[in-house]
This record gives sequence, structure tokens and C-alpha cells, in this order.
Amino acid sequence: MKYSSNVLEEAVLALNALPSIGKKTALRLILHILNDDTGKADKIVQSLEDLKTKLKTCSSCFNYSDKETCGICLSPERLKSTICVVESVRDVMAIEDTDQYSGQYHVLGGVISPLNGIGQEQLNMQALFDRIKEHKIEEVILALSPTVDGDTTSYYISKNLEAMHVKISTIARGVSFGGELEYADEITLGRSILARTPYSLNTD
Amino acid sequence: MKYSSNVLEEAVLALNALPSIGKKTALRLILHILNDDTGKADKIVQSLEDLKTKLKTCSSCFNYSDKETCGICLSPERLKSTICVVESVRDVMAIEDTDQYSGQYHVLGGVISPLNGIGQEQLNMQALFDRIKEHKIEEVILALSPTVDGDTTSYYISKNLEAMHVKISTIARGVSFGGELEYADEITLGRSILARTPYSLNTD
Repeated sequence: MKYSSNVLEEAVLALNALPSIGKKTALRLILHILNDDTGKADKIVQSLEDLKTKLKTCSSCFNYSDKETCGICLSPERLKSTICVVESVRDVMAIEDTDQYSGQYHVLGGVISPLNGIGQEQLNMQALFDRIKEHKIEEVILALSPTVDGDTTSYYISKNLEAMHVKISTIARGVSFGGELEYADEITLGRSILARTPYSLNTD
Repeated sequence: MKYSSNVLEEAVLALNALPSIGKKTALRLILHILNDDTGKADKIVQSLEDLKTKLKTCSSCFNYSDKETCGICLSPERLKSTICVVESVRDVMAIEDTDQYSGQYHVLGGVISPLNGIGQEQLNMQALFDRIKEHKIEEVILALSPTVDGDTTSYYISKNLEAMHVKISTIARGVSFGGELEYADEITLGRSILARTPYSLNTD
């Protein structure tokens, strides 16, 4: 692509540095911004500045927050005795969107991955153990990725919690609701047979 | 989507305002920016500011430029007597990428579209006629969209140039190179038969 202006090219390259934004898409976005008179560019600039200066990480659960402690940790309506351990802020959002969980969260910031040089020191792991001890947590739900690294991390956490007599559970894995059996992958289908649950007439 | 932070939500909404960026994509981009330590956000902010303050429109052809007059208009290597009339800056880039044209351009900024309330006053139309008169242009190539509005605009321009004895041409339309006939749409195929060109053994 030949640009008639360096300023234009720099702007395209800046957006092109983001994942899934190719040069053609970046150019389309920049030309859209240039033709826009509703201040979209200003809003983007302002919000990116705000992210840098105003966005905080909750001191308790490490979720993104506007204050020292996030709304979930502060809410009096949420169960204090259960912590759901997730990898990232995005997982918190995904679980919150289900409206099926009303306990606390703990964002690890990743999973233990020896190949990528990520050990427990790089994660919010000690803070999790401290929280469980200090706040008399009764149940820890492990909601990590079903990968080798995720399983390693789940194993590491459960090993460290052994002495604390806290109930540990993991989220159920199996065939998706609405999914057709023939399209489920073999491992998921195989494990869903091994981990079959009693059939109840009162399922909801 | 439930956001744990207003700052985060504002940033997602700011990107979501761009075309083809949904909320999920916007969130993914923002989380990527938050985890990035190479200054991508700063580069985006800087380049958007630069677009606002430094990007100019060429006073002659209305292409985007860093200076008063763009590189194409200033280049001594380019033919001064031919102007290719296009709708947008993007069309200039598309034609430049072909490496098949070495004349001047004129960016109209759109086409005449009565339904959308766009007449010749909203376009860089008078500037085109002035340029053709002042610079003794010999050929005007109309490279506008093959739509009703594009055709109307081409007609309007050619009508206005009648008295000036300038050669007017339009870019060739027909079946794509590498395209298969059976997949060409009927209008394109029909017109490509009506507008057939003499067969030459020395085609390149």
C-alpha cells in the first residue's frame, strides 16, 4: 500500500499493531475516523489515556476496577465464603454474564507454564493462599483452561490447599448445551461419558 | 457484557464506535493494550493526535498529504497533462498500487447523490474545472464507481468539459482478469460483450 502521507501511514501502522487488525482494516478505520465529525477519535484518545491513569487492579481479587477494591469484592450481596479462581479478567466477565455465580473471584493473571517461564511467582498465587487463610474461605472453585498448563495450575493450587481443609471443586466439563454429539471432539465426549452424572427429572 | 470498571467500559465503547469493531473485539483489543508493555497505546494516541493536527489535504488534488501540496502533484516525473478523477483517497491508493498510472489525480470527495443531498457544491468539483482550465489538461480519466450516482457524476463532469475540448475517458469495465465467465454477473458480462475490444496478438 502506498501512502500519500507519513502521518497517515503512522496511524495505519499504530492500529495495525493490534491483534486481528490488518493494514487494510487499519486504513479503513483511519479513513472512517478522518471523515467522522462526532469526535470518535477524541473519545478513543481520552479513553486510552484514562486506561493508563485511572484503571486500577482490585487489591483483593486482582480484577480491573475504578477503585482500590472492586465492586464484586465490596458487594454485601455476594457470598464471601466462596472464591472462583480464574486466569484473566475476561473469564470474570464471562462468568458474570451467566448470572449463575454470586461468590468472589480471584484473577491469577495466567497459569503456571514452565515452557513460557511462568511460575507461581509471576501469578497472584500467594495472594490467593493468603486470602483463603485470612477470610476463612469454605470453597474454592477452579475455573482454569482445560489445558496441560491449566491442569498443572489446578493441581498446584489443590496441593497447596490440602492442609487448609477447604472444599475444592472445578467447573463441569462436557458436551455443550445445544451441541450435537457427532460434532463434539473425542476427548470431550469420552470424558463426558466417564464423568456422567445421575439423571434427574428435575433438571433446569 | 458486565464490566467491573467504568473506565474499561468507556474504552470498549470508544473502540466499538468504529465500523466492524464489535464489543467483543473491542474488549479483546483493550485487554491486549492493557497487557502490552511496548507502548502500543501511546503510539495510537500520538498518531490520532497527529492526524488531527498534522494531516493536510493537498490544495491541488485534495489527496491526503503532509504538506500543502502532495508528493504526486509535486513530482517532476509524473505526467502533468492527465488527471484521473476519483471519489476518495482510497481510490488513489488502489490505483497507485497498480503501478500503471503516472499522471495526476483529483479527489472529488464523493459523487453527486441527490438522494443523500450531495450536489456538486459539496464536492471538489469547481476546483477540478479550474485545474483543467488553468493547467491545460489534455486528458481526464473518470474512475468513479459504476453506480447510478457515479454515472451521474461522470455525465455531469463530461457535460461541463464539453466546451474545453479535453479528451475524456473512463476506466475499462468488464470481466475480471483470472475470473471465470460463469461467475461474472449478468450486467458485467453483457456489457463486456457490447464493449468488446479488437483482439491483438501483442496483448500484455
